[in-house]
Amino acid sequence: MTNDTLATPTCILGLGLIGGSLMRDLAEAGAPVYGWNRSAATADAAAAEGFDASTDLAAVLDRAQEDRALLVIGVPMFAVGGLLDQIAEHAPDCGITDVVSVKRAILDEVEARGMGDRYVGAHPMAGSEESGWDATRTGLYDGAAWVVCFDRAAAASRSGDEVPEQWTRTFRDVVALGKLVGSEVIPATADNHDRAVARISHMPHLLSYALAVVGDDGGPLTLSLAAGSFRDGTRVAGAEPDMVMSWCENNVGPVTEALDEAIELLTAARAELADSGTAATLAEAGFHAHGRYRARSGSRKLDGGVKLSLRPVIRVSPGSGAWVRELEQAEGLGGRLEIF
Amino acid sequence: MTNDTLATPTCILGLGLIGGSLMRDLAEAGAPVYGWNRSAATADAAAAEGFDASTDLAAVLDRAQEDRALLVIGVPMFAVGGLLDQIAEHAPDCGITDVVSVKRAILDEVEARGMGDRYVGAHPMAGSEESGWDATRTGLYDGAAWVVCFDRAAAASRSGDEVPEQWTRTFRDVVALGKLVGSEVIPATADNHDRAVARISHMPHLLSYALAVVGDDGGPLTLSLAAGSFRDGTRVAGAEPDMVMSWCENNVGPVTEALDEAIELLTAARAELADSGTAATLAEAGFHAHGRYRARSGSRKLDGGVKLSLRPVIRVSPGSGAWVRELEQAEGLGGRLEIF
Repeated sequence: MTNDTLATPTCILGLGLIGGSLMRDLAEAGAPVYGWNRSAATADAAAAEGFDASTDLAAVLDRAQEDRALLVIGVPMFAVGGLLDQIAEHAPDCGITDVVSVKRAILDEVEARGMGDRYVGAHPMAGSEESGWDATRTGLYDGAAWVVCFDRAAAASRSGDEVPEQWTRTFRDVVALGKLVGSEVIPATADNHDRAVARISHMPHLLSYALAVVGDDGGPLTLSLAAGSFRDGTRVAGAEPDMVMSWCENNVGPVTEALDEAIELLTAARAELADSGTAATLAEAGFHAHGRYRARSGSRKLDGGVKLSLRPVIRVSPGSGAWVRELEQAEGLGGRLEIF
Repeated sequence: MTNDTLATPTCILGLGLIGGSLMRDLAEAGAPVYGWNRSAATADAAAAEGFDASTDLAAVLDRAQEDRALLVIGVPMFAVGGLLDQIAEHAPDCGITDVVSVKRAILDEVEARGMGDRYVGAHPMAGSEESGWDATRTGLYDGAAWVVCFDRAAAASRSGDEVPEQWTRTFRDVVALGKLVGSEVIPATADNHDRAVARISHMPHLLSYALAVVGDDGGPLTLSLAAGSFRDGTRVAGAEPDMVMSWCENNVGPVTEALDEAIELLTAARAELADSGTAATLAEAGFHAHGRYRARSGSRKLDGGVKLSLRPVIRVSPGSGAWVRELEQAEGLGGRLEIF
């Protein structure tokens, strides 16, 4: 975490693992934050720990409108549309972001309601196979990638229009939010985000489910012999199917494409194994791909414990100069934003 | 680790991650242990830390014959045949075990040389994506499954013959070795072992390679967004292809069968996703399979830090009563042996 403060209060709508952990971090940083959760059990648990949490959505949104708070949508995908309707009614002037795992489906819901000038989609690449308030913790976002979408700015740039001032202000607020909790902010369009997460989040879950079934089909001896590679390879098979399916069901095209690639690779390996007694082509390709991933992604701990980010930095001043081009450049590199 | 001692000195042939870590554990437990490694770099590194390690295979085997040491073969599969020839020449009276990842291929090499009466195959289910002496450490086997094969006893039982006394003594020595380093000893025949590890070790590696390629094909943004599920799902893609292929190439049938199952599951998920917009069938099956794995496999830490093994115990007295039937029962349950 940094010593920055937020110019705008934060109102979190949905206090599960992602929204609840964000509330913990903001409160710990001394930033003004309050929230809503549909279930009283969660709101009560949060309130019992001293957090400002309520089940009264209209009241929370009225307060956010008063504050001009940044709204953070943290509910499951199926509940997003209804929540946007409530926001349109009660908080017409607030900037909106979200922490949901797919971005195109939400952008479509936002644009269908004409709310695109104040919506900046986001997705912190953190979480676990657990869910709910009990799984929340501080520091969940420290060092994580926090995707911030810039579709509205890219569209304006393409058509030669001005980017709405409210959108640019919301974009700054969302970047500041991600940075306050220690994340590295990475710009991406909704579609490019969705294609990426199909490969590095949704596919790992589907492969994990498949591996769990293949192991279980082997019977008790097989499960008894399972060690580190099976444990790690099946960890996220412990994730709730409903949650994982809410991602896949809202990202069918990219997930299908990634699945097709995986099936093709495994089918080729199977043929090579049957024909030549080896699957060396897949093994070599995977080993080298893994090396590139390790060289490019995340951070590396130096001797002495200092973390060195492996993502290039792109400095951008939202609203100034060739800033949309700079965002596209950062997106292409998977680079992290510094705002000035 | 226990306070037991070993009745028989241990001679480890091959001091990589598996053999070298075993040497560390035995030395720490005060058990007599020495070893050989083909490369001087490894033998020198071990000797520099005070271990009794040499590159002179004939001398080491002559010493083992003098001691009636238990020989532990820890070389790559391709080197096993040549090593058995040397053992036949220099150490004709030693019991033999191994810590190699496949069991049928080694048993065939052993039987081709008529050495089956003194060979008890084994496989500790531990390791990592690293290899070589530098990766060795004490405690690698603590709590791990240590498979011990009983094909020779099962064959005698089927044909109504006596199990050779040397074999039974070697079996006791191998079980004692696994238990001394803190492992849970699980009996299995070579073929059942190989079928099991195809599913819980070889498949996780192949899926990990495939996932690494699918992620890498997404480009820099994709790799930059990779978080926990991709990191864990690709961890073993960092394992040397030559090592992983030495397993698969010596386990083609079971690996092919497991690959076919995985491809079928993923193909069905792909079709369901395209047809119905969901992959819930795979997700539900994988989630429940994962739950069964968690309930059955390994150990669970109780409050207070005490580890409770989830494997049933089967008490067996080698050479007495219905002991082969009891081993088969333990194998079917993935149970752990207590020898009396």
